[in-house]
Amino acid sequence: MRASVIHGHRDVRVEEVPDPRLRYPTDALVRVTHACVCGSDLLGYRNPAPRPQSQRTGHEFIGVVQAVGSAVTTLREGDRVIAPFTWSDGVCPHCVAGLHTSCVRGGFFGQPGSDGAHGEAVRVPFADGTLVTVPEDAEAPPTALLALCDVMGTGHHAALCAKVRPGATVAVVGDGAVGLCGVLAARRLGAERVIVLSSHPDRAAVARRFGASDIVTGRGEAAVESVRELTRGLGAEAVLGAAGTGEALHTALGIARDGGAVGFVGVPRDGNEGIDFRQMFRRNVALSGGVAPVRAHIPELLADVVAGRLDPSPVFDLTVKLDGVPEGFRAMNERRAIKTLIEF
Amino acid sequence: MRASVIHGHRDVRVEEVPDPRLRYPTDALVRVTHACVCGSDLLGYRNPAPRPQSQRTGHEFIGVVQAVGSAVTTLREGDRVIAPFTWSDGVCPHCVAGLHTSCVRGGFFGQPGSDGAHGEAVRVPFADGTLVTVPEDAEAPPTALLALCDVMGTGHHAALCAKVRPGATVAVVGDGAVGLCGVLAARRLGAERVIVLSSHPDRAAVARRFGASDIVTGRGEAAVESVRELTRGLGAEAVLGAAGTGEALHTALGIARDGGAVGFVGVPRDGNEGIDFRQMFRRNVALSGGVAPVRAHIPELLADVVAGRLDPSPVFDLTVKLDGVPEGFRAMNERRAIKTLIEF
Repeated sequence: MRASVIHGHRDVRVEEVPDPRLRYPTDALVRVTHACVCGSDLLGYRNPAPRPQSQRTGHEFIGVVQAVGSAVTTLREGDRVIAPFTWSDGVCPHCVAGLHTSCVRGGFFGQPGSDGAHGEAVRVPFADGTLVTVPEDAEAPPTALLALCDVMGTGHHAALCAKVRPGATVAVVGDGAVGLCGVLAARRLGAERVIVLSSHPDRAAVARRFGASDIVTGRGEAAVESVRELTRGLGAEAVLGAAGTGEALHTALGIARDGGAVGFVGVPRDGNEGIDFRQMFRRNVALSGGVAPVRAHIPELLADVVAGRLDPSPVFDLTVKLDGVPEGFRAMNERRAIKTLIEF
Repeated sequence: MRASVIHGHRDVRVEEVPDPRLRYPTDALVRVTHACVCGSDLLGYRNPAPRPQSQRTGHEFIGVVQAVGSAVTTLREGDRVIAPFTWSDGVCPHCVAGLHTSCVRGGFFGQPGSDGAHGEAVRVPFADGTLVTVPEDAEAPPTALLALCDVMGTGHHAALCAKVRPGATVAVVGDGAVGLCGVLAARRLGAERVIVLSSHPDRAAVARRFGASDIVTGRGEAAVESVRELTRGLGAEAVLGAAGTGEALHTALGIARDGGAVGFVGVPRDGNEGIDFRQMFRRNVALSGGVAPVRAHIPELLADVVAGRLDPSPVFDLTVKLDGVPEGFRAMNERRAIKTLIEF
């Protein structure tokens, strides 16, 4: 089959790879119908280190089950499925607790030795524990379903970790697809006011469409001041951190109200640098979050998507075919696109 | 009147100071009946920097109202009162939200220009917002009431921030008075199992008396391994961080279960050093806490003290008179005492 492979720094190629096969009785094979490029895919794309071993790209896909292993009980050929970006066995203590990203047998699609989402088919380990079936009669747009693989679930995780409550004033740091989905998630949880930090008019427009009430264009200390001005000097009680730099984390902590919480889901790039622990302590600002267990969130979000109450589709603003994956990476890397959709 | 004054490194003296007077209409004067020395008092005591201006010591006291300003409405002469370690106006947005330690007009007893707890009387700013009255007919031990000024409320805050829930497995890092009160607080909130890190048999004995189920004697990585062994490899879902060093924070994060929370109340001494943010992110471990708004917690805890359901008194293991304050500091500094009670 054909799939996208990363060979090195900014070197993504679509090429012929071995067809995936069922390897374990708990596997399923899924024919990919839609996939997309993630902001976190760009971390590997931008990594200047030499990569002696090529690796598949992508971890967000939806598709149709082609075959299942002998131990798979909840899926059958022809099922439409949503794959969270990590696989998980569904039965370990972490999965049972809803933290599938800590599954003791878990892994990431696209990690070495596994299939990536940017290919015609994917072998899915622990298919019963991993995949979520789309109801047969559901008429949801594929892009809305696809967003549940990562960005919508991750935005929702940020909002939960930031303890967004009905009537809350929320701020979102990061105007990529996750931050924008965070706006949707915060509004869905009842936030009254959602302030988004964005200097990109196209992203700010999507934020507004998703329910943002205020756009702040500055960064760093200027952004902190702007948010404080908008909140009677107090800051936002819930802050969604959807960008992984130390500066973004520092800003997120700075715009939080005393006693508030930052729900952080941007992959950390700078370690502890953005954290001012003494400030957190003095002001009782909590820092929560991490790799989002989207598998736990998909059923709840899917119900809203199927009911037409939730549609994150507008985060996709570039559509390519499989051969266009390298261009999809380039466009996102150069910030010409928010998120690239791959149609098969 | 007589009060304790710190002049420099390990230089605490009891001496004659001006009698406190009502300065603002919102003030009250309180005659101190019982006070105590806090682990955080030792931070100033150990500070080697020269102190050009002497400063009062102590921030934990209970007593009897001697006089109130013209604007005070909820207190009168003769009332028995508990003072939280910070004063607060009770009406600013932070106080209304229950975060009295962020009060825009707040301050700490013993800060420059204010009275400390280690003196015969204290001027209490914003008396209505600050002091909590003890019911007239209450027969609670003074030591139990005194512990509500700081350590019991701070242990409770740690437990709340760590999200202790009924049936929870909890770990406590720090075997000082706050950590020990954290054991009481965790059990009070329904924790089934409380693991305490302690290498001091006398402190471990109090922890057991307060409901600790397991004592771990190692530190650092050894402690992390021991706690994991006790918890089927998972760690504790709620961790109370009651020691302020980077090592203690690092340990607290390390023994937390994936998806768990560290409620941190030890005054940070080493900034960010103890934080491994990538680990927190990968394992979804939350860090919450800060200066405890004990004013918010006193009414609830006081009800339990008065009802005889809660008694943190055993944290006091040395009793002195006012003249013995310097010895009280020395004994705690040398770890000969857990917490020094001062009787007037």
